Formats: sequence, structure tokens, C-alpha cells
Amino acid sequence: MRIFRNAWLIVDENGIIVKITKSPPNDVEEKITFKHSLIMPGFVNTHTHVPMTILRGLKDDVDLKEWLEKYIFPAEAKLTADDVYWGSLHGIAEMLSSGITTFNDMYYFEERIADAVLKAGVRAMLSRGILDIAGDTEKAIKATREFLDYVKKLWHTKEYSKNHIFFAYGPHAPYTCSKELLMKVREMANDTKFRIHIHLAETKWELTTFKEKHGKTPVEYLDSIGFLGPDVMAAHVVWTTDNDLEILAKRKVKVLHNPTSNLKLASGVARIPEMLKKGITVGLATDGPASNNRLNMFREMLIAALIHKGTKLDPKLMPAKTIVRLATIEGAKVLGLEKYIGSLEPGKFADFVVINLKTPHAIPFHDIYSMLVYTLERDSVEATYVGGKCVWKKDVGPTSYDIWKVCEKVQKIRERILT
Amino acid sequence: MRIFRNAWLIVDENGIIVKITKSPPNDVEEKITFKHSLIMPGFVNTHTHVPMTILRGLKDDVDLKEWLEKYIFPAEAKLTADDVYWGSLHGIAEMLSSGITTFNDMYYFEERIADAVLKAGVRAMLSRGILDIAGDTEKAIKATREFLDYVKKLWHTKEYSKNHIFFAYGPHAPYTCSKELLMKVREMANDTKFRIHIHLAETKWELTTFKEKHGKTPVEYLDSIGFLGPDVMAAHVVWTTDNDLEILAKRKVKVLHNPTSNLKLASGVARIPEMLKKGITVGLATDGPASNNRLNMFREMLIAALIHKGTKLDPKLMPAKTIVRLATIEGAKVLGLEKYIGSLEPGKFADFVVINLKTPHAIPFHDIYSMLVYTLERDSVEATYVGGKCVWKKDVGPTSYDIWKVCEKVQKIRERILT
Repeated sequence: MRIFRNAWLIVDENGIIVKITKSPPNDVEEKITFKHSLIMPGFVNTHTHVPMTILRGLKDDVDLKEWLEKYIFPAEAKLTADDVYWGSLHGIAEMLSSGITTFNDMYYFEERIADAVLKAGVRAMLSRGILDIAGDTEKAIKATREFLDYVKKLWHTKEYSKNHIFFAYGPHAPYTCSKELLMKVREMANDTKFRIHIHLAETKWELTTFKEKHGKTPVEYLDSIGFLGPDVMAAHVVWTTDNDLEILAKRKVKVLHNPTSNLKLASGVARIPEMLKKGITVGLATDGPASNNRLNMFREMLIAALIHKGTKLDPKLMPAKTIVRLATIEGAKVLGLEKYIGSLEPGKFADFVVINLKTPHAIPFHDIYSMLVYTLERDSVEATYVGGKCVWKKDVGPTSYDIWKVCEKVQKIRERILT
Repeated sequence: MRIFRNAWLIVDENGIIVKITKSPPNDVEEKITFKHSLIMPGFVNTHTHVPMTILRGLKDDVDLKEWLEKYIFPAEAKLTADDVYWGSLHGIAEMLSSGITTFNDMYYFEERIADAVLKAGVRAMLSRGILDIAGDTEKAIKATREFLDYVKKLWHTKEYSKNHIFFAYGPHAPYTCSKELLMKVREMANDTKFRIHIHLAETKWELTTFKEKHGKTPVEYLDSIGFLGPDVMAAHVVWTTDNDLEILAKRKVKVLHNPTSNLKLASGVARIPEMLKKGITVGLATDGPASNNRLNMFREMLIAALIHKGTKLDPKLMPAKTIVRLATIEGAKVLGLEKYIGSLEPGKFADFVVINLKTPHAIPFHDIYSMLVYTLERDSVEATYVGGKCVWKKDVGPTSYDIWKVCEKVQKIRERILT
């Protein structure tokens, strides 16, 4: 990672970086100057369920299974497609406010999330969450196909949406999807070359259940049926054996690390430093706002930097620079979008965050990576740009919609689903 | 903890709470209205070294011993009394910005920290850090006496300072203080009834060293020499045996929990949930800004709420309400000041924080404790009051000094000590 001082980022009319230069540009249409600021690549949030802002703080201090079955699923059953749209606009604004410019989502009514993504001008890889625990495999496949058709229609009717909406398959988890469904997804992914987004080995319960039922860990099970590959983006991956790590490395599976969610739901601490050592590509993630309770990449960077040091008793683990990489370029690799996003280089999209470095608690000025991870907070984000366009501004919010109108809607939806 | 809606907090001319009432007051000098806000007790930061903002981010990603010996001690050797004054004003502003109204400090040139405390209008329990690892026990005792004389002079010359400056003894740690020094401190504390502030069982190295040298844990060692008692405030207390916890509970030792610092320096995770179960009084703390890198109580609340759940695999540990208690009333008990601070009740000082609840990321509105711990951040603090007086205000900073002038000074000091 290189740092330029007093430099100019030249962006073309398509929102693509032309060059980074020390000489002030002359023949440009518009010049914007940021003083005392760091211009850095937008963060990539590799795993979330963005409309769940609606369910934020619905219940804390219970474990994942109870939380899902007793609180989240019953509330979700009441959500409409419109609710999901408003919740998505709400969550996207929060992500933009922490400098996230691309996110990887899995939920229901995903077509309305696509609408919200286009409205906000952010980028997202979207997957319709599917499962067939109740038996209806065909219905799950149909839901996926319908969502893909919707995305294809968007790409066709709105040319620019090709750069904003990316498609992925979303089999929910090995314990909620049949082998048949998982294999069908694998087959479709092989055909279409779209990525697969799945929850994997999140809890001890999942590990124990698989060991009992299949005599295999969840990772071993997925590998035994030929599901794993470099196109699989696996969220959490907390409960792993040494052999699991070997498999993940060998199959080039991408890992989505959700430190806050894993701690809050008491799922545990993923073996991220060991994964990195084995060359596994890892991205940082917030998980859904219902299990966090936020969509704030500064929070995830801090907690990812602290938790492994403190639990492995090694202060050299997960240094600040590594953390910043996981939150940017490594996240881009996780999504297979590293040619387009994740760093500020000619030919990539001008997706960047403007971070104010002149704030009392950041003084004295110190190592920039240390400042980003340990010192600064979300409130230092001054503006967030996607494709060279300002999509979020401090004291304004998203530039393409009224955040307070969205908040009002979300508050009303919450009140409705709780009655 | 009780919550009043649409209520008035009546404060007398001495900054003491008269009553909390639902009826709008008439015969008052001044009325201030806060809308969409939570008025809550100011936070108590039970362990810090406030002027260390000067050393913020000096070095990350190394362990405590190397960090202290190679980076911190050499830099501290260059600090002057004036430097400590400016660093203290800097750190106090940061604490006020996160709603901290009382802090417990240990450092050198502590008299200048006292001056800064009075300047800022905050409250603090101050201890001159002493050690005699190099052999000079008398010098250490003299330093303590001199600081106590200074504080007594302040109490005498400035009547109001009695409510702002509280004295404590500051033997640095069992591994840096001789038995002679520790016993002298114990004797003085018995005479004067002032509290004792000490670092205890922070690292595995400390535990191993004591086991080798004394055949005892650091806690057992201090107990064996009769040092422990209800007036001892022990910072960190990470490396403890079951027997240690029994001793701490029996001696009613107060524990100062520094979750961020313990993780960042890879010291480990203190057994706080077990301590609470045994009835040990625990307060939350930031530690010094050099090992954190911040003085932000919202950060400590979040990390204290997450870390125990995630490492003990129990989501019911450290619920949000417990965390808020540790950051307020339990912190006051740690300092022995629960008659004066830690909650908003008639007869106590009107030390409170105004927290804006109307922020997009806090919507939908949920449980107030969950919001404080998991959802809100420092940037929701609108104003901080000590003794009914506004000492910090958003977009202004401390009301009694210019924060940017202080920042300039601190930046220059940093540059000087690094050359």
C-alpha cells in the first residue's frame, strides 16, 4: 500500500480513476480539494443482511439459535418487500457513513435490496437466501432463478446497474440446505460463474450436529460432496479443525470474518491469524445489524485487531496494516472484484472515503494504519464517493434520498411487526 | 436503575441535585431543555494515565514489557511537568467528549494533573505513581508525601477543589515496589484513610515471575504481606487463580477492568464475570491513551460487553445493563465516592451526560441499555456537565479552554520527545 501526500486523484466521466498525480491538474471539469484529509479506498463489507436495521436491538444477550428461532424468524415472517426496501435504504446510509462502498448481502426480497442499491448509488453483491429445511428444494431454486432474472433485467434496462449490482447464489447454511440443494447450487455456479455466499461453521452447535450426523465437520462435509471451491464465500467459519483449515486453503474458499457478531452471539473467535498464515483470503464484515447492532467498519477493524491479540496472547497478530487490507483490497478479492475496487489505482472505480485527520483525539499524528484501526472512529468520515460521485456527506447523509424520511418509515415498520 | 421520561433535574447553586420531578419547575434561575435526549450519570473511568495522549500510537503491536521498556519509558524520561499539564488538558477533553466526569489517575508530575483537573472542572482521584525497583524507597515515599502536601494546599487555598481532587496512594505494581514500600503505603493508608491505586496481575509474565520468586501468585503475595483491603483499587487483575478470586472477594479489593488495553497489549481477558458473581466490585477503565489508543468509555463498554460473551461462549454474560452499571455507579463505588457521584439522585453532584438519541443508526429505538452499549457511539454525546456546570459541549469542546491550542502544544511536545 502506497501513500501519496498532496496528490490529485483524476477521475473520468465514467467514475474510473485515470491517474494519481502530484501535479495540480488543469484540464479538468471540476476540482475538489480536501484538506487535512486522508483519501482511501472505500471499505468492502463482505457479509451482511442489510435490511435487518428494522430488527436492530430486538433482543440481546441470548445465543444464536434462541435469538433466531424465538425473536428474529417470527419478526421476519411479518416483513414485506416494501419493508425490506426501506430497511435497505436505512442500512446502506449507515454503511456509507462508515465509508463502506461495496457490500455482500444475503436476504429475502433481495430484488428490493437491488432497487435500494441503485437508489443509493452504492455497489453490492446480492444473494437471495435460500434453504429447504422444510423440504421444498424446487421452491428454493425457483426463488434464486427469479432473483437472477430480476438482476438480469436490471442489467438489460439500466446499463449502469452492471457496475453496481453483482449476483451470487445464497444457500443459507449446510444445516438448513439439503445435499440436493447444495449440489444444484454448485452446478448452477459452475455454469454461470457467479459466486456462492453461505454461512459456515458459525457455532459449536453446528459442528457438534455435523459430527453426530455425518461423522464430519461442516467444512469436511461440504468438501466431501464437492461443494467447496474458490467461488465460495463462507461467512463466520468459527469452528474449524486443523484439517478444515487445510481444506479451506486447498479449495481457495474465501472467509468472511464477523468479529462483533461472533462475540455478541457468543459464537466464538474464528482462527483468522492461522487462516491468513495458510494464505486463505479473508474479508472483514459487520454481519446484519440485528446481531451487531451496527454496520460500522471502524468497529469491525478495531475488534478484529484486538480480539486475536488478546485471546492468543500475541500482540503481533493482526497488525493495523493487515486489518486495513482485510477491510479493503482483501474484501474485494473475496468478492472477486479486485480488478474494479478495493484500492485506488488507475483503471479501478473511484470508490473512496474522505477521512478528516484533524480531530483532537487523533493528535499527536501517528502511523496512519494505527490511526485508522485504533484511534479514529466513524465520525471522522467526511464523505463517501462511489464511482467518483459523492453518495454520502457528513451532516447531510445520503445524497440521493432523505435519511430522516427513511428513519420514520423504519420506526413505523418496527412498531407494526412488534404488534 | 430507574428511567424518568419528560422529567426535570433540579440542581442547586452548589451543583448538587435537589430533586428529579415530572412537573416543570417555576422558581428556578435558569432552565435548559434537552429534546430527544437521555440525561444519564457521567461515566467513571477507574484507571488511566491521562497525560499519555502525548505518547498515543507511539508503538503498536508489541507486548507490554517491550512496549514499556523500549518505547514508553525512554519517551517518558523526556517529559517535563509542563508537558504533563498540556497532555492532561488534552486527555481530559477527550474523556469529557465521551461523557466521563470522574477519573482515577496514576502518573508522574501528578500536581500538574491536579492543576489541569481544576482548569477543566472535571473530578479526579489522583495518585503519584511510585516505585523503588532501583532501590530508593525513601525517595518514593517522599514523592508521595510531596504530592499529598500539594493536594492539601489546594484544598486549603481553593475550597471548591475538595470536591474535584481526591487523593490516593500510587504504588505502581507488586513487581516494581519492594515489600518495604508496599508496607509503608499500607501503613499510611491505614492512618489517612486514603485509597491505594495499584497495577496487579496484568500479564502472564507477572504471574510466572511471582510463582518462581515467591511461590505465590501476585494476589497471594500481596495478601500474605497484609497489603490487601477494601481501600485497594487494583488495575487489570487479568491473571488470577480461583484462590486469588476468593482472596479478592474476602478482602473486598476493588477491580479496575481495562478490556481494550488488555487485548491490545495481549495481556489477556480478566475473569470479570466470575468476579462479579463473587460480589467483587468492578469498575470500567480505558487505561492510558498510549495503550488503547483512546479515552472513550463507549469503546470500553462495547468491548467489555463483547469479549466475555465471545471467549466464554455465553451470550448471557455481561448484559448491557450490567455494563452501564460498571461504567457509572460501580465505578463510583470503586473510588469510594458513591455518596457523591455515579447516579443521579438528590444529594449527589449533578454530574451528567446529555446523549442525543435521535440519530439514524439508533433507529428503530430499542432498549436504552442496549443502545448505550451496542448501538451508540461517543459522537452522540451532546454535552457533559459536572456539578451542574457544562464543561464540554459538542462542536465547542471543553468550555474552559481552547482545545486546539492544547492540541498544538501536544503535537509539539511529541515532536520534541521523538528527536
